Amino acid sequence: MASPIQTDALIIGAGPAGLFQVFELGLREISSHVVDARPFAGGQCVELYGDKPIYDIPALPACTGRELTERLLEQIRPFATTFHFDQLVSHIARGDDGRFDVRTRAGLHFDCGAIVLAAGVGAFVPRTLKVAGLDAFEGRQLFHHADRVPAEALEGKQVLVSGATEQALAFAARLCDAVARRAPGAPARVTLIHRRDAFDAADDTVAAFRTACSAGALHFVAGQPTGLQVDGDRLTGLTLLDATGATVSLPVDTVVVLQGLSPKLGPLADWGLALERRQVQVETAKFQTSVPGLFAIGDVVHYPGKQRLILSAFHEATLAAAGVAGHLIPGDDGPLEYTTSSPRIHKLLGV
Amino acid sequence: MASPIQTDALIIGAGPAGLFQVFELGLREISSHVVDARPFAGGQCVELYGDKPIYDIPALPACTGRELTERLLEQIRPFATTFHFDQLVSHIARGDDGRFDVRTRAGLHFDCGAIVLAAGVGAFVPRTLKVAGLDAFEGRQLFHHADRVPAEALEGKQVLVSGATEQALAFAARLCDAVARRAPGAPARVTLIHRRDAFDAADDTVAAFRTACSAGALHFVAGQPTGLQVDGDRLTGLTLLDATGATVSLPVDTVVVLQGLSPKLGPLADWGLALERRQVQVETAKFQTSVPGLFAIGDVVHYPGKQRLILSAFHEATLAAAGVAGHLIPGDDGPLEYTTSSPRIHKLLGV
Repeated sequence: MASPIQTDALIIGAGPAGLFQVFELGLREISSHVVDARPFAGGQCVELYGDKPIYDIPALPACTGRELTERLLEQIRPFATTFHFDQLVSHIARGDDGRFDVRTRAGLHFDCGAIVLAAGVGAFVPRTLKVAGLDAFEGRQLFHHADRVPAEALEGKQVLVSGATEQALAFAARLCDAVARRAPGAPARVTLIHRRDAFDAADDTVAAFRTACSAGALHFVAGQPTGLQVDGDRLTGLTLLDATGATVSLPVDTVVVLQGLSPKLGPLADWGLALERRQVQVETAKFQTSVPGLFAIGDVVHYPGKQRLILSAFHEATLAAAGVAGHLIPGDDGPLEYTTSSPRIHKLLGV
Repeated sequence: MASPIQTDALIIGAGPAGLFQVFELGLREISSHVVDARPFAGGQCVELYGDKPIYDIPALPACTGRELTERLLEQIRPFATTFHFDQLVSHIARGDDGRFDVRTRAGLHFDCGAIVLAAGVGAFVPRTLKVAGLDAFEGRQLFHHADRVPAEALEGKQVLVSGATEQALAFAARLCDAVARRAPGAPARVTLIHRRDAFDAADDTVAAFRTACSAGALHFVAGQPTGLQVDGDRLTGLTLLDATGATVSLPVDTVVVLQGLSPKLGPLADWGLALERRQVQVETAKFQTSVPGLFAIGDVVHYPGKQRLILSAFHEATLAAAGVAGHLIPGDDGPLEYTTSSPRIHKLLGV
């Protein structure tokens, strides 16, 4: 087995809290790696309000979630941190030596002296289609990312797209276009399913979708999936219950579920942390959890007076950095020099 | 007597902490007035590092103290707050109704429901020349601001400038120039005093000063002031002890002390606040002091883990705003709506 990645600190979550944590640890010359379940940095900032302005970031009167993320990435550039995206943490264990063994579902393995949990409202994972037994076809006939469906799962196939999102409608429209043009790799037939005839997408996307349906290029079935048909180890059909109470059976080769993202805290409850209403309890001097060496900041934590604001996460990251420093090298948790006047920090930042 | 200025909240200190406090109170529709001992906003940010970059303001990779102040003033513009500059708070009393009576040395009088103390390391007040009895001549023959010396205190007078600062040397040079040109309003004689022949000013300012001394236009005496001569209610002379141990007596009509600024916490200790090492103790849920309704944030406070950073003051202002809200209207201290999505806040901000 490959030896684990060694790092002073592992930061779980690449949202604004995690990004600023990199900065504050960096100022203290503490190396860190960052893992995030999504394929890019920014967390809720990008997922929920990437293009919407935030007005309460101090000294930035208006700033979109994406712009905030870019500014933070620029600020931490001097520290050349390694990011590990698409990584859902599945296991955390504290060894007798006080170091942590952290593993991700995709097989990454870390050995770290401290952890900062900056997981926000949880990892943003795709919402699933809830039909008993469907999970077993993940990666073969069931997919949750439009851009990760292999060509062989589409070409000449009965494709079923589930969802009312912009992504679902756009993906279905793209496949239909390939069908209409008889393009190489085109599916045999494309059907969109959603529990009702209402969509959460831009007006023109919905209009284009309805035009495609009218032209007979795209099929739409409104209904609640209730079961599936299987032949050997292959999924062959899906049953839906429509609004009239009738049962519809659809032949299926490939299911692409694009129902948006949902935050999941994942195995947090298994890590031995003191929780309060699904939030991690921390003390407010160092933002340490009930597990020594495991710190937590941002929307994932609770303490008296807590407000779920980005600017509070920045403050919490700063105090947690002192906590991590004191944990790694006892006595090293004093206040930091000022960035304006410290020659050491100027050298670190390359200014 | 004029009736006091009524306000929900009075913020003491117009540094970054006080400015962002205006914003956070404003989002909760709580009106505030701001007092500061200096003639402009920005506090230490402007006094100590106006033109020096700060590197740890989140999402602002580099930003001078002056730029930070301007950005915060821009951010709070929608709230049209009233600032009272050059106001040193001299008296705070809490009435039986829980409201505060606040007075400044210059005669302002406030009646407010809550106070947020954001006084930083204290009010920046001019350093004084320590000679017993000199204080009594303040405003008549003793001045501490170069631009507030009345013409009649200069014209034809024996003027003594005390200090080694840029301001002291520049002011002395300006007066000497008037003497040399026999300009209207010129003093009779200008003498700079400082305890030793070394200056805290730019090289070319010092060079110009030395040239003026060589030309005999400007007089310089290095020595420690030890006493003064008085004739009736007039100051007539100052005695200095020079480095050789000799006593020098200088005839004086006007003393202008330009020895720089020094932070002074002022009458804080008299306000009944629990202090720890000259810092105000606060709890970290609402940032309330030991006096109900009196909140404190920024460099003036102490709590476990406290770091004297601007970004921490921003967080503290946010929680203090909830505290002030709950104090003014019990039960109203819940978390705020998000600025990205709240139509009420969009209306307040005019966006």
